Amino acid sequence: MLSDLVISPVDPALGARVQQSIDCKTKPPGSLGRIEGLAHQIALAQNREDPSIDPAHLLLFAGDHGIVAEGVSAWPQEVTGQMVLNFLSGGAAANAFARTADCEITVADAGVASDLPDDPALVRAGIRAGTRNSVVEDAMTGAEVDAALRFGADLAGAKVRAGAKTIAIGEMGIGNTAAAALVGHALTGIDLKALTGPGAGLPAEGVARKAAILSRASARRTVSGPKDTLAAFGGLEIAAMSGAVIGAAAARVPVVVDGFIATSAALAVLTARPEAKPYVIFSHRSEEPGHRLILDALDASPLLDLDLRLGEGTGALLALPLLRAACAMLSDMATFDSAGVSDKA
Amino acid sequence: MLSDLVISPVDPALGARVQQSIDCKTKPPGSLGRIEGLAHQIALAQNREDPSIDPAHLLLFAGDHGIVAEGVSAWPQEVTGQMVLNFLSGGAAANAFARTADCEITVADAGVASDLPDDPALVRAGIRAGTRNSVVEDAMTGAEVDAALRFGADLAGAKVRAGAKTIAIGEMGIGNTAAAALVGHALTGIDLKALTGPGAGLPAEGVARKAAILSRASARRTVSGPKDTLAAFGGLEIAAMSGAVIGAAAARVPVVVDGFIATSAALAVLTARPEAKPYVIFSHRSEEPGHRLILDALDASPLLDLDLRLGEGTGALLALPLLRAACAMLSDMATFDSAGVSDKA
Repeated sequence: MLSDLVISPVDPALGARVQQSIDCKTKPPGSLGRIEGLAHQIALAQNREDPSIDPAHLLLFAGDHGIVAEGVSAWPQEVTGQMVLNFLSGGAAANAFARTADCEITVADAGVASDLPDDPALVRAGIRAGTRNSVVEDAMTGAEVDAALRFGADLAGAKVRAGAKTIAIGEMGIGNTAAAALVGHALTGIDLKALTGPGAGLPAEGVARKAAILSRASARRTVSGPKDTLAAFGGLEIAAMSGAVIGAAAARVPVVVDGFIATSAALAVLTARPEAKPYVIFSHRSEEPGHRLILDALDASPLLDLDLRLGEGTGALLALPLLRAACAMLSDMATFDSAGVSDKA
Repeated sequence: MLSDLVISPVDPALGARVQQSIDCKTKPPGSLGRIEGLAHQIALAQNREDPSIDPAHLLLFAGDHGIVAEGVSAWPQEVTGQMVLNFLSGGAAANAFARTADCEITVADAGVASDLPDDPALVRAGIRAGTRNSVVEDAMTGAEVDAALRFGADLAGAKVRAGAKTIAIGEMGIGNTAAAALVGHALTGIDLKALTGPGAGLPAEGVARKAAILSRASARRTVSGPKDTLAAFGGLEIAAMSGAVIGAAAARVPVVVDGFIATSAALAVLTARPEAKPYVIFSHRSEEPGHRLILDALDASPLLDLDLRLGEGTGALLALPLLRAACAMLSDMATFDSAGVSDKA
C-alpha cells in the first residue's frame, strides 16, 4: 500500500543514547514505567534526542457504509453527516477534548453519504458518497481504495509539512464497527463473532443479528491481503486512516491510533507495511470487545483503558498529555549530576 | 482525625441533574466510560453542574523515616533533602509533569531529616526532623501526628481559599514504602509480606530483608485505629497527606491521590472519615505490588495503569488531563437538540 512512500527504519544508536539520557534523570531507573518507553518511541520516530509532540494534529475522517442498509447499527446513517457538522461547529466530544489537549483538528470527508454544505474547514476526498453494501458486492473498487489511501497519506504529509509533530487519527461513520470487524477477521483470522460488538449501542439481539449479517458478507468472497480486504469490506474512512498512518510514518512523526476502527486501519497498514510499527502508538483499549482481540493480535499495549467506545479520536486525544509528559521527561528533568542528588547506595 | 473539619455529603439531586446533562450530549449514552463517571464525581465534589479543576495544585510533602537505619531502602536518606532542593529548582519529574499538566506545586517539608536552606517557596511543618525508628519505638507521638494532620489540612485549605479547584497529593521520602506497608497492613489486615515491595529499587534479597524488618516493627505493638497507626509507623509526610485529603474534602474540592504511599494516607482517612470518599480520586495503579492490594481493599479503580513507581505526585499529574477532559465534556459539548443530531433509531 502506497509503496512510493518510504518508511525509514529507526536508528538503534539513537535508541541507546536516549536510554542513557533517560537513565541519568533524577529518578530510580525505570520508575516512570510506560512513560519511559513512550519517550524512547517518540524520540526514535522523530529521529531526535529531544522530541516534542507539539503541535499535535488530529485527522478526523468521516465515511458512510453501504452495509447499514442491512441494519447493523442502532443509529440512522444521517448521523454521520450530522456529526461532521457538529465537528465543524466545535460541539462534539472530539472538539472538547482537543481543546483541553491543545490539539488541532482537521475534519475530513472521506466518503459521507449525505450532502454536506461547503465549508472551508472541511477537506473532501471526493471519491464516493459512502461505500457499497459489502453483503452483496465489494464496498470499494481497488482504485477507490487507492484513492482513499492517498487522500489520508497526503493529508498527513501536508500537516507534517505545515509543522505538525504528531498525527492522531480518529473517525466517525455509522456502521463502521461492522466494517472494522470484517477487516479484522479477514486479516487476523480471529473468529468474526468475537469481533462483532454493540458498536454505538446495539442491544444483545441486535448484536446477534449483526453477527449473522457480517458472516454473510464475510462468506461472500475470499480476500488476499490488506488492500483487497479494504476493497471487499470498506470503509473509505478506514482506508483513509490507513493512508494517514503510512503518511505520518513516512514523514517521521508518531501516529496516535484511537479505538477499534482506527486500530483496524492500523492493522491493515502493519500487515502490508510492518516497517511502520515503530511510528504507531496505540492510545487506548476500548470497550468494544473486538478491540482487545485485535490489539492482542498486534501485540499492542495501549496506554489507557477507560471503557471508551465513542471514537472520533477521543481516546487518542486523552493520551496526548502522556506523550507530552514523556517528552518533558527528556527535555526538562535534571540529571543526578546536575541536581547534586546521590545515586543508589 | 481532624474532627473539627466538617466534610459535607454530596447532593444526590445534583447527581441526577448532572447525569441527565451527560446523557444529552452528542454521543451514545455511556460511550465516554470512565470520563463520564469522573465528570459526575467532580461535579458532586464541587457541588456544581459546571465543574472545573483549574487551577489545580499539587501538594508535595517530603519526610524522612527513622526505619531507614535498619536498611529498608536502596537509597541513602540524604536523597530526601536533595530531592526537595531538586523540586524547588524545578528539575524533578514532578516539576516537568506539572508544567505539561498546567498544575502549580507547593513543596512542603513535613519532616525532612537533613538541613534545608531557607527558601521562600518551601513550606515547613516544623514538627520534627524525620520520624523515629518504628522497629524500636513509635515513629511519632499522638501530638506529632495531630500536628502533621493539621499541617496538611491547613495547607490544602489555604490553597483552596487562594483559588485552587483541585488538590493533588504526592510525596518524597526515602523509606516511605516501608511505612506505607506497615500502615496498610495495620488498617486492612492484608499480609504484610504481600505489601512489602522493592520501593525505589531494592533487589529481591533486599525485599526479603525489608519484609523481615517490617515484621519486627509490626510485631512490636498492636494499634487501634488510623491515628494510632500513623503514630506507630509514620510517616510525617503520610500524616500530612491524610490531613490534606481531609482539608480538601472539607473545602469541597476533589483530591487526586498519587501512588502507594499517598494511597496509604488516603486509606487512613477513609478508615477514620469514610465521608471523604466522594472527594477522593485515585489516579493510578503503581508497580509497587502492595498498591494494587490496598486499592482493591478500598474498592478503588484508578484511572491509569502505567507501571509507574516514582511517587512525587507524578501519577496524579498524569491523570489531571483526564479530569480536565471530563469537565470539558460537561461544559463544552453540544446536545443532540442544539446540534441537530438525530437520536438512536
